[in-house]
Amino acid sequence: MNQQRKTALVISAHSADFVWRSGGAIALYAKRGWDIHIVCLSFGERGESAKLWRQPGMDMATVKQAREQEARQAAEILGAGNIRFLDVGDYPMRVNDAVLFELAALYREIRPEFVLSHSLKDPYNFDHPLATHIAQEARIIAQAHGHQPDTPVFLFEPHQPEQCEWKPQVLLDISDVWEIKRQAFESMSAQEHLWEYYTRVALQRGVQASRNSNLKIKYAEGYQRIFPQVANELA
Amino acid sequence: MNQQRKTALVISAHSADFVWRSGGAIALYAKRGWDIHIVCLSFGERGESAKLWRQPGMDMATVKQAREQEARQAAEILGAGNIRFLDVGDYPMRVNDAVLFELAALYREIRPEFVLSHSLKDPYNFDHPLATHIAQEARIIAQAHGHQPDTPVFLFEPHQPEQCEWKPQVLLDISDVWEIKRQAFESMSAQEHLWEYYTRVALQRGVQASRNSNLKIKYAEGYQRIFPQVANELA
Amino acid sequence: MNQQRKTALVISAHSADFVWRSGGAIALYAKRGWDIHIVCLSFGERGESAKLWRQPGMDMATVKQAREQEARQAAEILGAGNIRFLDVGDYPMRVNDAVLFELAALYREIRPEFVLSHSLKDPYNFDHPLATHIAQEARIIAQAHGHQPDTPVFLFEPHQPEQCEWKPQVLLDISDVWEIKRQAFESMSAQEHLWEYYTRVALQRGVQASRNSNLKIKYAEGYQRIFPQVANELA
Amino acid sequence: MNQQRKTALVISAHSADFVWRSGGAIALYAKRGWDIHIVCLSFGERGESAKLWRQPGMDMATVKQAREQEARQAAEILGAGNIRFLDVGDYPMRVNDAVLFELAALYREIRPEFVLSHSLKDPYNFDHPLATHIAQEARIIAQAHGHQPDTPVFLFEPHQPEQCEWKPQVLLDISDVWEIKRQAFESMSAQEHLWEYYTRVALQRGVQASRNSNLKIKYAEGYQRIFPQVANELA
Amino acid sequence: MNQQRKTALVISAHSADFVWRSGGAIALYAKRGWDIHIVCLSFGERGESAKLWRQPGMDMATVKQAREQEARQAAEILGAGNIRFLDVGDYPMRVNDAVLFELAALYREIRPEFVLSHSLKDPYNFDHPLATHIAQEARIIAQAHGHQPDTPVFLFEPHQPEQCEWKPQVLLDISDVWEIKRQAFESMSAQEHLWEYYTRVALQRGVQASRNSNLKIKYAEGYQRIFPQVANELA
Amino acid sequence: MNQQRKTALVISAHSADFVWRSGGAIALYAKRGWDIHIVCLSFGERGESAKLWRQPGMDMATVKQAREQEARQAAEILGAGNIRFLDVGDYPMRVNDAVLFELAALYREIRPEFVLSHSLKDPYNFDHPLATHIAQEARIIAQAHGHQPDTPVFLFEPHQPEQCEWKPQVLLDISDVWEIKRQAFESMSAQEHLWEYYTRVALQRGVQASRNSNLKIKYAEGYQRIFPQVANELA
Repeated sequence: MNQQRKTALVISAHSADFVWRSGGAIALYAKRGWDIHIVCLSFGERGESAKLWRQPGMDMATVKQAREQEARQAAEILGAGNIRFLDVGDYPMRVNDAVLFELAALYREIRPEFVLSHSLKDPYNFDHPLATHIAQEARIIAQAHGHQPDTPVFLFEPHQPEQCEWKPQVLLDISDVWEIKRQAFESMSAQEHLWEYYTRVALQRGVQASRNSNLKIKYAEGYQRIFPQVANELA
Repeated sequence: MNQQRKTALVISAHSADFVWRSGGAIALYAKRGWDIHIVCLSFGERGESAKLWRQPGMDMATVKQAREQEARQAAEILGAGNIRFLDVGDYPMRVNDAVLFELAALYREIRPEFVLSHSLKDPYNFDHPLATHIAQEARIIAQAHGHQPDTPVFLFEPHQPEQCEWKPQVLLDISDVWEIKRQAFESMSAQEHLWEYYTRVALQRGVQASRNSNLKIKYAEGYQRIFPQVANELA
Repeated sequence: MNQQRKTALVISAHSADFVWRSGGAIALYAKRGWDIHIVCLSFGERGESAKLWRQPGMDMATVKQAREQEARQAAEILGAGNIRFLDVGDYPMRVNDAVLFELAALYREIRPEFVLSHSLKDPYNFDHPLATHIAQEARIIAQAHGHQPDTPVFLFEPHQPEQCEWKPQVLLDISDVWEIKRQAFESMSAQEHLWEYYTRVALQRGVQASRNSNLKIKYAEGYQRIFPQVANELA
Repeated sequence: MNQQRKTALVISAHSADFVWRSGGAIALYAKRGWDIHIVCLSFGERGESAKLWRQPGMDMATVKQAREQEARQAAEILGAGNIRFLDVGDYPMRVNDAVLFELAALYREIRPEFVLSHSLKDPYNFDHPLATHIAQEARIIAQAHGHQPDTPVFLFEPHQPEQCEWKPQVLLDISDVWEIKRQAFESMSAQEHLWEYYTRVALQRGVQASRNSNLKIKYAEGYQRIFPQVANELA
Repeated sequence: MNQQRKTALVISAHSADFVWRSGGAIALYAKRGWDIHIVCLSFGERGESAKLWRQPGMDMATVKQAREQEARQAAEILGAGNIRFLDVGDYPMRVNDAVLFELAALYREIRPEFVLSHSLKDPYNFDHPLATHIAQEARIIAQAHGHQPDTPVFLFEPHQPEQCEWKPQVLLDISDVWEIKRQAFESMSAQEHLWEYYTRVALQRGVQASRNSNLKIKYAEGYQRIFPQVANELA
Repeated sequence: MNQQRKTALVISAHSADFVWRSGGAIALYAKRGWDIHIVCLSFGERGESAKLWRQPGMDMATVKQAREQEARQAAEILGAGNIRFLDVGDYPMRVNDAVLFELAALYREIRPEFVLSHSLKDPYNFDHPLATHIAQEARIIAQAHGHQPDTPVFLFEPHQPEQCEWKPQVLLDISDVWEIKRQAFESMSAQEHLWEYYTRVALQRGVQASRNSNLKIKYAEGYQRIFPQVANELA
């Protein structure tokens, strides 16, 4: 049955990145009946779980479990049927070739229509560009030998876009699914301080989307492309 | 009736640029029933008519007339119903505010869905980036005061793309209209040496379009965007 | 008396730009006893007064007057003692050498400690980079002939920073004067739709300022430098 | 005897890259009596041998052997006396320090006048920039400790130059050896679909070489420099 | 006692880099009573000790010892109380995670006010950008898990700045400590040929610092920032 | 007789720029028997004659005369047979089309083998990039209509190269003519403070030229190219 639905792939460095950065795209395509696959390379257990670590007697296994549970809940809210955790560690993230080949195999299996991952640079967080590098390398390997998914890659917005040399090339209207994204946010109790931050990001990109079109768009997500768009329209 | 058809606007520095660089897009949209407006800022009478000037007794009026005739014929072949010549001069091109306001008025009148013009830089030809500057400035003026066409601008491929810091962000499949574009080429008898050059450009971009998709595309045109794409799809 | 207070100069393309983009810096330095000079090259009468033009029977003189009054009120709220309007027109802005020399004379007269103006590029608005070009050219002329103010130039944040190739190099803490800036906003009744937009900009830059320091900063303004900072500290 | 002839070094990620991308330079210098050394880091056995893999019962050893044979034949046609295969694997390529030191030793042994390798970036193929990285790192190591070859490095043209941020800084006239390069092409039967593509690349660069000089040049290869040219002429 | 003094951290690829590139900053802050920590990842034993290796019978241990002794002497002259040598090797430098964690621990222990390291790129020397990468990655790891030093990073000037895409954003006046820096230079007897080179660098940056301010500055060091400056002043 | 000697063209914004920035190239080619044409767009009478203006009773005509005399003397020392002064004014420089056509005519008359002018950007001095713009535009006009000099353009080093986004792509060995350049410097008595500055520039570029080659080069000048080099060698 999976083979008959269109698929997309989201490669997230830490267990929450996919929510803040691409929750709108995920919810939008899930609503359209697509089968969305999310890969969390790590749980963000060291770098993005400070609130949990402040609890007395906390240990690594409990942190990972808590982050996994939050992420699964968020994925469910967004309508993504598949989420897996590769547990490669964070801060620093290190990805060996076995993981790379596992991702390449996933590309070949699900043949995604598009892939979402992080910006190419991030001076605040080296796990993010590594995740994108791996996402790209796995895509290239999956293409070798005659297999050619030719999946376009879209890079979601980093926390401080100008410092990451990231530029929005697509502004995706997520107004229809905003409430779902916000609800998924709120399952991220470890990072409550980011709720308002990413709500404002969506509002700003919404204003910009309206300015760059004739549409009234309240909430948007920005994406950068790696490859040229192949089209039969100029729009 | 014009008001009911969709429109596009092509702003060409010299009378032949629109053919080599965007003849495919013009033919494609003309075929779809759009009303395509072409503005030639000059005839290319000094910089791009060497073959004519080599004829004995040639004078400026005759050169302009010959170039206009060729361009009209090419526009007709491509299916563009409107072509006008602003005769601002070339090498060097100089555009005064009256011309600028005329263009702004044209934007407001036809409300184009998209605009095509030259690359932002060109160390070989200063008329080209000036044409784009004017195309952009007229668009901005047309938007002021509550008018908001918000027309996306696409930059067509210059002769030496890397030297012009131009990068293809959209590869437009023009295979279906290639024969029309080639026929329009051939009405440019003043610049016959470019026929094979631009045929090869279309073939190379076609191979690249195929590589960046799962499609078989024989001929393509490359375009760079100035503004982010506003979309409800990631494709 | 003026000579004894330190001065700063703000060069604003339209009558409201200085409020949205540098109101915090102005209020901060005014509070410190500096004498802030604001130059509005135009009233934004054509490009940024849509709300006024929608009133029946509106004419150019009335629009200009209304925008001037708003801007004077905002300057007063911010504590800027000097505001002048050069009325060079907008959309398109055109600046002749007489205006340039007037600005150069102002540099020599007030010898500002720093200058604030727009980003170097802006594909949405050609008046903005022109204002900065003029601000820089007047500074250069003021230096010629042995006069050397050597004023550093800071570029304030444009509406869509990534599209303008603008990058925040200084995050200025404006939390202490935020209420003043917000009050100055609200005197801009012609552009009420921007109030929330620029409040969110200040909040986002505040979060980023906190992330890039050990400080708790609620509201910030971002600035890009043109020249290297000369310092006896690394901070 | 080798010591008395001038040498050049070509470092090719896969066994065919040197033909498409630098076959002209190789043939040109071989014809001038130079001793050209080609290093193929891999056979391109996984990523660039799709046609072979489509044959029934194909296995890895046979693919490698076939690609090696083709490459040896091409090198011979081009006049390159030395070709070696380091068999480090492709898609993904991984290069350990032993290979790096082997290359550094080669630099010290042959003291090449110039080195040719891939572009610094390539979002379609991570083996290519790795090959260049290794070519550069080996060069740096070979220089340490008082050895100083100071070999200039030239980067040959990637498949999609603009996407790879590659820019032609030298256009090398290869017209005299074009037939040899074309013949070497044709020994690459595994990649016949590329013959016409790279013939057109050579023709386009030839037109551009003519435009950037007073010469009639039919076929050219483009190269980007990493280091400044040291010269006693401006040409 | 250390805890009560402010600290700074210098991460130097080879044992002498910190002297040429940041000796002025070190001396300046040491004079102000700060506790400066210098980390030399290697001794520069292979790549930057040619003069030593020309001595008959030289061996690796003796080279390392000589370079360490010089570096300790230079640190002492500059007033840096702490220098350590991690001996990871040079040309090529390879840094494992144990070294990375050791550096992260150092960040947490000394909580530096700023960090100095190399440029982000250097086509002449791959050890330099690796040192900066490690300096940044250790900083990021040190911040994870609730620890937040948020140390700003400044990149010192490479040998050929334009080729390394390095740009001076801060010009630090080191005139008061120039004689100390020069004296530290002169303890680098293995690289005497660089004394005059780096004296001229300091003089050129001094002239530029004067041009970019109203100050008379004779000697300066240039630094590039990685992160935006957080400030309550525009200066 | 002129027609039989090779020519080069130097387009200098102010009367002294050609000495500091390209005196070595001029002397080198003059020594080889070339006919060097220097065009000074202005005398630098306002922006670069502070020392003269400090003399009591100084007036504009006297300043211009003094600067012209110095420049003629420098040109003579360098061996440049032709120097002309277009007197278009400086700070700000403004160039009308008559001047542009005069320059285009000069291109057609002398058919230079190469052209030297300023960097493309300079935030400290807007006359410099204007001079280059004019040099390029005149070259383009001269080519129109079948005339095709195709002259390569080299950009000489600005005062603060990194701030001007200028990058040395050619390091020209000027050691043999250094004494001549230095002597020409010393005829620039109005700008004595620059003598040592530009001597150090030549020494630094000399060290870099040595590092990028196997040659011993004491003094060099750096140049950036606008167009790709067309060559039959890779050197």
